[in-house]
Amino acid sequence: MAGNSFGRIFRISTYGESHGAGIGVIIDGCPAGLLLDLDLIRRDLARRRPGQSAIVTQRQETEEFQILSGLFEGQTTGTPLHIFIPNQNAKSKDYSGWAELYRPSHADYSYTAKYGIRDYRGGGRSSARETAARVAAGAVARQILAQYDMKIWAYVKAVGELECTRPYWELDPTEVERNPVRAAEPKTAQAMEALIREVRKAGDSIGGQITLVIEGVPPGLGEPVFDRLQADLAKAMLSINACKGFEYGSGFAGTKMRGSQHNDPFVLEDGQVKTTTNYSGGIQGGISNGMDIYCNLAFKPVATLMQAQQTINQKGEPVTLAGKGRHDPCVLPRAVPIVEAMAALVILDHYFIHQSRL
Amino acid sequence: MAGNSFGRIFRISTYGESHGAGIGVIIDGCPAGLLLDLDLIRRDLARRRPGQSAIVTQRQETEEFQILSGLFEGQTTGTPLHIFIPNQNAKSKDYSGWAELYRPSHADYSYTAKYGIRDYRGGGRSSARETAARVAAGAVARQILAQYDMKIWAYVKAVGELECTRPYWELDPTEVERNPVRAAEPKTAQAMEALIREVRKAGDSIGGQITLVIEGVPPGLGEPVFDRLQADLAKAMLSINACKGFEYGSGFAGTKMRGSQHNDPFVLEDGQVKTTTNYSGGIQGGISNGMDIYCNLAFKPVATLMQAQQTINQKGEPVTLAGKGRHDPCVLPRAVPIVEAMAALVILDHYFIHQSRL
Amino acid sequence: MAGNSFGRIFRISTYGESHGAGIGVIIDGCPAGLLLDLDLIRRDLARRRPGQSAIVTQRQETEEFQILSGLFEGQTTGTPLHIFIPNQNAKSKDYSGWAELYRPSHADYSYTAKYGIRDYRGGGRSSARETAARVAAGAVARQILAQYDMKIWAYVKAVGELECTRPYWELDPTEVERNPVRAAEPKTAQAMEALIREVRKAGDSIGGQITLVIEGVPPGLGEPVFDRLQADLAKAMLSINACKGFEYGSGFAGTKMRGSQHNDPFVLEDGQVKTTTNYSGGIQGGISNGMDIYCNLAFKPVATLMQAQQTINQKGEPVTLAGKGRHDPCVLPRAVPIVEAMAALVILDHYFIHQSRL
Amino acid sequence: MAGNSFGRIFRISTYGESHGAGIGVIIDGCPAGLLLDLDLIRRDLARRRPGQSAIVTQRQETEEFQILSGLFEGQTTGTPLHIFIPNQNAKSKDYSGWAELYRPSHADYSYTAKYGIRDYRGGGRSSARETAARVAAGAVARQILAQYDMKIWAYVKAVGELECTRPYWELDPTEVERNPVRAAEPKTAQAMEALIREVRKAGDSIGGQITLVIEGVPPGLGEPVFDRLQADLAKAMLSINACKGFEYGSGFAGTKMRGSQHNDPFVLEDGQVKTTTNYSGGIQGGISNGMDIYCNLAFKPVATLMQAQQTINQKGEPVTLAGKGRHDPCVLPRAVPIVEAMAALVILDHYFIHQSRL
Repeated sequence: MAGNSFGRIFRISTYGESHGAGIGVIIDGCPAGLLLDLDLIRRDLARRRPGQSAIVTQRQETEEFQILSGLFEGQTTGTPLHIFIPNQNAKSKDYSGWAELYRPSHADYSYTAKYGIRDYRGGGRSSARETAARVAAGAVARQILAQYDMKIWAYVKAVGELECTRPYWELDPTEVERNPVRAAEPKTAQAMEALIREVRKAGDSIGGQITLVIEGVPPGLGEPVFDRLQADLAKAMLSINACKGFEYGSGFAGTKMRGSQHNDPFVLEDGQVKTTTNYSGGIQGGISNGMDIYCNLAFKPVATLMQAQQTINQKGEPVTLAGKGRHDPCVLPRAVPIVEAMAALVILDHYFIHQSRL
Repeated sequence: MAGNSFGRIFRISTYGESHGAGIGVIIDGCPAGLLLDLDLIRRDLARRRPGQSAIVTQRQETEEFQILSGLFEGQTTGTPLHIFIPNQNAKSKDYSGWAELYRPSHADYSYTAKYGIRDYRGGGRSSARETAARVAAGAVARQILAQYDMKIWAYVKAVGELECTRPYWELDPTEVERNPVRAAEPKTAQAMEALIREVRKAGDSIGGQITLVIEGVPPGLGEPVFDRLQADLAKAMLSINACKGFEYGSGFAGTKMRGSQHNDPFVLEDGQVKTTTNYSGGIQGGISNGMDIYCNLAFKPVATLMQAQQTINQKGEPVTLAGKGRHDPCVLPRAVPIVEAMAALVILDHYFIHQSRL
Repeated sequence: MAGNSFGRIFRISTYGESHGAGIGVIIDGCPAGLLLDLDLIRRDLARRRPGQSAIVTQRQETEEFQILSGLFEGQTTGTPLHIFIPNQNAKSKDYSGWAELYRPSHADYSYTAKYGIRDYRGGGRSSARETAARVAAGAVARQILAQYDMKIWAYVKAVGELECTRPYWELDPTEVERNPVRAAEPKTAQAMEALIREVRKAGDSIGGQITLVIEGVPPGLGEPVFDRLQADLAKAMLSINACKGFEYGSGFAGTKMRGSQHNDPFVLEDGQVKTTTNYSGGIQGGISNGMDIYCNLAFKPVATLMQAQQTINQKGEPVTLAGKGRHDPCVLPRAVPIVEAMAALVILDHYFIHQSRL
Repeated sequence: MAGNSFGRIFRISTYGESHGAGIGVIIDGCPAGLLLDLDLIRRDLARRRPGQSAIVTQRQETEEFQILSGLFEGQTTGTPLHIFIPNQNAKSKDYSGWAELYRPSHADYSYTAKYGIRDYRGGGRSSARETAARVAAGAVARQILAQYDMKIWAYVKAVGELECTRPYWELDPTEVERNPVRAAEPKTAQAMEALIREVRKAGDSIGGQITLVIEGVPPGLGEPVFDRLQADLAKAMLSINACKGFEYGSGFAGTKMRGSQHNDPFVLEDGQVKTTTNYSGGIQGGISNGMDIYCNLAFKPVATLMQAQQTINQKGEPVTLAGKGRHDPCVLPRAVPIVEAMAALVILDHYFIHQSRL
C-alpha cells in the first residue's frame, strides 16, 4: 500500500536510500530448493553499475551484496530471501547544498510536498540507486524462468533521433553486450556512442528508447480484466526512474493501421497455434498467446546536467543550480538490465498466479 | 489476485459477460454520506453506449442500471455500493458459429488456452461491454473528486493519420461533446468523422489516440517506488480493451530532447510552486507536483471487421470468418469516457492512500 | 481494504443489506471447468435458513439464488462467479422505530460512529443475513475441496452450560443433520433443544460453542510467519457475527498442560508421518501436518431479545426498547454451515497459494 | 501472499532465521516526520530478550539493532523504515544433530513437508527469534498510537492452573514490569514464579494465558464484514508462535450467559456514548465503540524440553531426542511484549484505513 512492494506470489519489497547504510530487496514467495547462482546476480548488477564504460556516470558504487536470509547451504528455503547491497562510496558532502533547493525535473519538490521531509543526499529514496535492488531480484526471477525456457532480453533501440529501425527479430541478442550502448546493431551502436559522447561534452543529457523482448511465454498468462499481462508490464516499466512511455506489439504505430492490415491471422504450425503476424505483441485479451511479447519504452533525458540551471529553493527564492559532479549523459545503457529485471518479475509472478488454480 | 478488482482504498470489482444476465461493479471503500447523483452515472454511460451516433456500432445495449446495495435514502452508507446493468438485447444466435473458431486478434484463443473453456457469446468476459461497469464506477469517483476540485477530461487526439497537433492547453474541453468523434477541434473532428465513415463503408476499422488531462491534483499523490502515480495510470489505461500504449508528459517525443530543453524550471507563482514548462506531465519521482497531469494513449483498430478473414478453428483447421453483424469502425469516441473513468479511479484511490497517514 | 473481500487466490467479495434489493457474493479466482452443483449450494443455504425448525427464528427469508455471471453451459468459466440472493420478505415497517435508537450489543452505535449514517432496516449490512452469501461461496469451495478429498464438518458442542464432552473423533458426523440443534450426540441434542425452547419462552437468548473439523488436509498448507493456517482460520471465524472466541488443537485447555504431556510424538504409519496424539490440532509452525485440524468457537447469546431493555437514542436520551418481532433464541444451529463455509474458503485459498509455487 | 507481511497501510515485512546473519523488519507506510525514540524500541526488545530473568531461557541473544533505511536526521522520511537485528551468538553446532529429526510439536516436519528443505539451525525461520522483529515494529507503532492517546498493555493472567481471577480493570498496569512473570498481581506473580521454577527443574514446560488491554481507541475502527477489528486481532495473535486461542470481551465464558445478562446497555456519560457493562469487549459489529478492548490469549507449553522424547527422523526411523541446551520453561513472560506489539500494529493500521476516507 505504501508502494515499495511489487508482485503478488513472487513479491519483492525494496528499501534504502542512495546515501544511507545501503539498499536491498526482500523476495517473499521465492520457491524453495533453488540452487541460487550468485554469479548471475553479479552479472546483472555489473550491467547496471556506474563506471562500467566511458559513456556512463563515473560515480563509484559498489554492487557487492550479502544474502541476509532465506538461503541455506546454497539453496533457497522458501522463506524471505534478503539481498543487501551496502553503500560504500557515499560522498555526502557533494550534496550539502542540495538540502534547500529544488532541482528541476527531479523529485526534490514532490517528495517534500508529500512527506514534509526528504533525505536530500543524492536523491535519497528517489535515486535510481534503488533500481539495483530490482536488478538483484530480477536476476533471481530469471533463474527460475530459465527453468521453464522463458528468456528475456532488451536493447537500446534509440538514442535521441538515432534509431534502430530494424525489428527485433532481425537483430542478434548477443550483440547487445558487445557495445557500451547496449544497442543491437554494431553500426547504430557506434553512432549512438558518438552522440552520447558529444552530449556529455556539452554537459547535457539525452533520452531514448529501449525494446524489450520476452520469448517462450506459454499461452495463458495474464489475469483479465484489470491484471492483464500488458497492464502489469506497463506498470512495471513506468515504475522505473525516467521511463515516460510504454507500448507493446504495434503500439502507437498501430493506431495508424486499418484492422484489415493489423489483425493477426491464426494458423497451425507443427501442432501449435501461431499467428502469421504479431501486431498483438503476444498478448490478446490480456492473456499471452504463445507468440513473442515485445514492448517499446520511452526514457527521458536525465535531469542532472553539467550546466547551470535556474530554479528556486524551499523558501521560493530564485537560485542558480551549478552543474557539477558526475552524471549519466544517457541513462539508456544502464536501464537495459532494469527493464529486463522488471519484466522477469512480472512474468514469473503471472506464471505462479496462473499455476495456482491449475 | 484473479484480476477483476482495481484500486486499494477505493476498490472496484467488476463481473459479467456480454451475453449473460448482466454486468456490474461493486465499489468497496466508497465514503459514506455521498449524495449520489445518478444522472452523472447515466450521462457517462450514455457517452459510452453503442448507437449514440452514426459512427459507432448500432448494436443495441441498454445502460439502465440498478443500485443493489450500499445506498440508503439517496446516500452512500460506506458499505459495498453495487451497480448492476442487466443485459437486455443479447442476440446470442448471432454468435452460434463462433463457438469453435478463433477470431483473429480477439481473445478467443488466449481465453481458451488459459481457462480451457470460454463463453463465446459476443466475446463473453473479454467483450468491451465490461467497460460499462468501469464507467459507472468512475462516475462515482468523479463526483468525489469534484468535491476536491479535481477535474478529468479526455478527447480523441488522432484517428489513423489524422491528428490534432495543438496541445491540450490550447483546446476547449467543451468542444468534445459537441461532435460525435469526441475530438477537441471542430475542423479535425469533421475530417475524422469523414474518415471513420469511409472506413466503415469499407467494412474495415481504424485506430487512433486519446489525450487525457487531469487538472487540480494537489502535490503529493503517488507512492514510490512501485506505485508511482504514472505507473498506476499506465496500468489502468493498458487494462482497457484495445489500448496498446501509454505515455505521459513529454512521452516518446521527449526521448528526442536534450535535458537542457526538457528540464522544467521551478518558479514561485502567487505563493505556489510551479514549473514554467511541464514536460514532466505533472509527476516527478512518481508523485504529483501540482501541475496538470496529461497522458496520451494508443488504441488499435478493433478486430471485428465486416470483411471475410482467414483463421483456424479449435481443431486447427483453416476456416473463413465471414464479416457480419454490427461493429465499431473506430473505438475511440466511445473509449473517451472509459479513459476518464479509469483515471478517476486511480486519482481518487491515491488521494485516499495519501490521506490515510496524514 | 474496505473489508468486504476475503481470500487471495480464491477471493470472495460480498455485498448487500438485509432489507435492500438483495445480498450476494462474487468469487474471483474460481477455477474454470467446474461443473457447478447448484443443489449443494441450495443444501447449505437451507441449513442456514431461518424457519428451518421450531428453535430458530421464524422470520421468512428466501434463499433462492441466481447465477449472474461466470457460469456457461453449467461450467465455471474462470471469470467472476456471481451468486445473487434477492431479498423478498423485507418487512421494513418492523424497523421504523429503530432509526434513532441504539440497540444494546448491536452494531447500531458503532456503525453510526464510523459512517455517520446507517441503513437501520433490520441491521442493514451488519445483519447476519450477509452470511448467506458466505455460505453460498463456501458451498462452491467445498465442491472443489471434495475433489481433493478434503472434508469439513462442524457441530454444536455446547449450548450454554450444556456441553458435549466427548471429543469429535468419538462422534458421528451424520448425526449432526438429524437433530435441529446440529449437535453430534442424540442425547445432548435433546437436552440442548429443550434448553433453547425454555430460553425462547423467556424471551431470552443463549450462547454456545461449535466444534469445527477439517479432514484430509495434506501437509504443507499455511504461509508463515503471519499467514499461518491457524491465523487465517481465526480471522475467518472471528469475522462471523456473534463469534467471540477461537481455539485450535488443545486450545485454552492446553494452557494447563505440561509440555511432556502436550507434545505430539511423531511415528510412521503406513509410510505416512503421523503423530500419536494431536494436541497440535493438525498445524505446526503455521503449516498443516496432515493430521485432522480441529477448532472450537465461542458464540455469544444473540443481542435481540423479546424483553424490554433500557438504552439510549441518537440524541443520547434514555429510551426503552420493546421486545418484539422474531428472533433466534440461539444462533448456534444456523451458525454451523457458516463456520463450515468460512473454513472451506480458508483451506481452498491456502491450497491454491501453496500450489502456485510448486 | 507468501505470508511474511502484515498490515495494509502500516505494513511490516519480517525476514531472517534464528542462526543466519540476522533478523529484521521493514515498515512500509510509516508516516514521515516521526522523531523516532530508539530507547522505546530498546525497551520493548529488552522485555522480549532471553536471559532477562532466571525463569526464562538463558540463551544469549543480542537485541542491538541498526536502522538501515528510512530515517534521516532522527526523523522518519516516509520511505521504508528498516530495522536490522544481527545474530551474534549463533551456536550452530548445538543443532548439528537436528538436521534429520523431527522434534515433537515443532515445525520441523511441516516445514520439510511444505518446502522440501529447512534451515534446521535453531528452528530457522520457525524460531520465535523472528518475533523480535515484530516487537521492534510494534514499538514504532506504539509511538504513533501514543500521539493519539491510545495505550496498550498486557499481562500474564495464568500459568498452568494458576490464574489471576480479578478482571483487568481492578489491576495495576505498573505492577507488570515489577515481577519477572509479568503478572499483574504481586501474590499471583510469586506463585507463578515458583511454579515455573518447579517446571524448569523437572525439565518440563508449561502454558498459560495472557490478557491484552487496549485503551483509548476511538469509536469507528474496523472494516466489516471480514476485516472486523476482532478478526484482525485474532489473526495477529494466532500468528504468534505457541498461541493456541483467542477470545475477546466475554469470550468463551460469555457462551454460558443469557442475552439478558450479556447485553451492554448504552448510556450517555459526560456527553459520550458508553455502555454500563462491556461484555462486547469494546467492539460491536466489528467496529470499535469507544470502550476498552480486551482479549485473552492461550499459549501452549513450549515444545522444547529438557527430557528425552521419542520421535522419528526424516527416514521415518524411531529416534530418541535427548533433552539438552537452553529453553524457556514458560514462554508467557517473554510473550507479553509480542502480544502488545501485534496489537499495536493492528490498531494503527485500522486507524489509518479508517482515516483514509474521512
